[in-house]
Amino acid sequence: MRIDVVFGPTTATPALITGRVVAVIDVLRASTSIAVALANGARNIVPLESADEVITRAKQFDKGEVRLAGERKMRMVPGFDLGNSPGEFTREAVEGKTVLLTTTNGTAAMVGLQTARDVVVAAYVNLEAVSVLMRTAARAGTDITLICAGRDKLFSLEDAACAGRYVRAITKRLTKVELGDGAFAATVIDRKYGDRLDQLFADSEAGQALADAGFAKDLEDAAQVDSCPVIPIFQDRQITLLGPDRER
Amino acid sequence: MRIDVVFGPTTATPALITGRVVAVIDVLRASTSIAVALANGARNIVPLESADEVITRAKQFDKGEVRLAGERKMRMVPGFDLGNSPGEFTREAVEGKTVLLTTTNGTAAMVGLQTARDVVVAAYVNLEAVSVLMRTAARAGTDITLICAGRDKLFSLEDAACAGRYVRAITKRLTKVELGDGAFAATVIDRKYGDRLDQLFADSEAGQALADAGFAKDLEDAAQVDSCPVIPIFQDRQITLLGPDRER
Repeated sequence: MRIDVVFGPTTATPALITGRVVAVIDVLRASTSIAVALANGARNIVPLESADEVITRAKQFDKGEVRLAGERKMRMVPGFDLGNSPGEFTREAVEGKTVLLTTTNGTAAMVGLQTARDVVVAAYVNLEAVSVLMRTAARAGTDITLICAGRDKLFSLEDAACAGRYVRAITKRLTKVELGDGAFAATVIDRKYGDRLDQLFADSEAGQALADAGFAKDLEDAAQVDSCPVIPIFQDRQITLLGPDRER
Repeated sequence: MRIDVVFGPTTATPALITGRVVAVIDVLRASTSIAVALANGARNIVPLESADEVITRAKQFDKGEVRLAGERKMRMVPGFDLGNSPGEFTREAVEGKTVLLTTTNGTAAMVGLQTARDVVVAAYVNLEAVSVLMRTAARAGTDITLICAGRDKLFSLEDAACAGRYVRAITKRLTKVELGDGAFAATVIDRKYGDRLDQLFADSEAGQALADAGFAKDLEDAAQVDSCPVIPIFQDRQITLLGPDRER
């Protein structure tokens, strides 16, 4: 069994996707916001590549069924209901709704993953829930790829650190695990910070940019490890909850 | 002044290349072999993408002027004069010769860098020589990008660690440096290993593969920090020495 971590979605070759369990990580902020939205009862989340697609797709819904969400340059797209701050995806805002979401990095990272066995959305807020699923897959011998959405498709520190945390959680008490160089490096970065996620976000460019733009609260929300114990599964172009809650 | 480190050449956007001083790093083994060849008097090195290109280009030279070099799956291309082991590029083998070189990762990383201000080839064996050049550029306010060739275009641990060592060398006694997340992460990996390059190579997939294939000596050679104090400059599709030696 092998675990790879890929920095930037464009570098994920088919061999790293096909038949694997794949997690997409965009800690600041898409992954975090998706987990929060599902934890707060959103029916599903549809990641879309552009604001125009969100607007077009919204026309297929009754107005009360849908929420238009997403950002460009960190700020809410004009005319949308929600931006990309985890704190916006409250129960009042999203319960029972379809959330059409477009973000700069996170949603783009979910394109081209159709050949994966499963695709999950991973952040710090749902660390243990998603790790349980991935540990189960790992024990059954399924290879795992963690895709760091990154920033403008480049390496981002907080996604790498989060991926490292997942690698450690998945491999706990597991023998015979092969770690790709990216996975190994991610654990090095994770170990540097440990639980000091405030310091991690202070060191990261995305964290600095968000703080500068007035989104410091988002950093606090993203650092709430295991606050949203949900497993968001990306399937048929939408993200829904895995588990008994899905039957509600 | 800003320093970026890019993991895998495919992720280097034009903004990270144009007008910058760019270093290409493929510690195991292309960068190291190139530095060794130039230190041993090679006239120039022409990086080429395929073995066929090497053979075609060789026809333009008298047989005594040229050396065909390179690897596929780590081993010398059949019919070539040299593989990609640093130890093969001896004075006897390369002095005064043009070396036509194709490698899986390192040479491919040099494609598409025409808009850079300067392109240098960096390894541990020429750390201080290349760092001096880059420090000079940095002091003059020129942005720097270090491109880790990686392995099959993915993250490789030893290139990242070497990039981190360069970042530290370049920024020494320099204030007002902006580090991209990749550059910062590279320094984290470098600091984990410090001078224990044997451990670095033992942890890296490329290092393990080379050792398994019988190339353990190459790892020793690649770890000889500052053993080849040359600055290989890539210009007009060939790599030559920078400095007074060039006038010889």
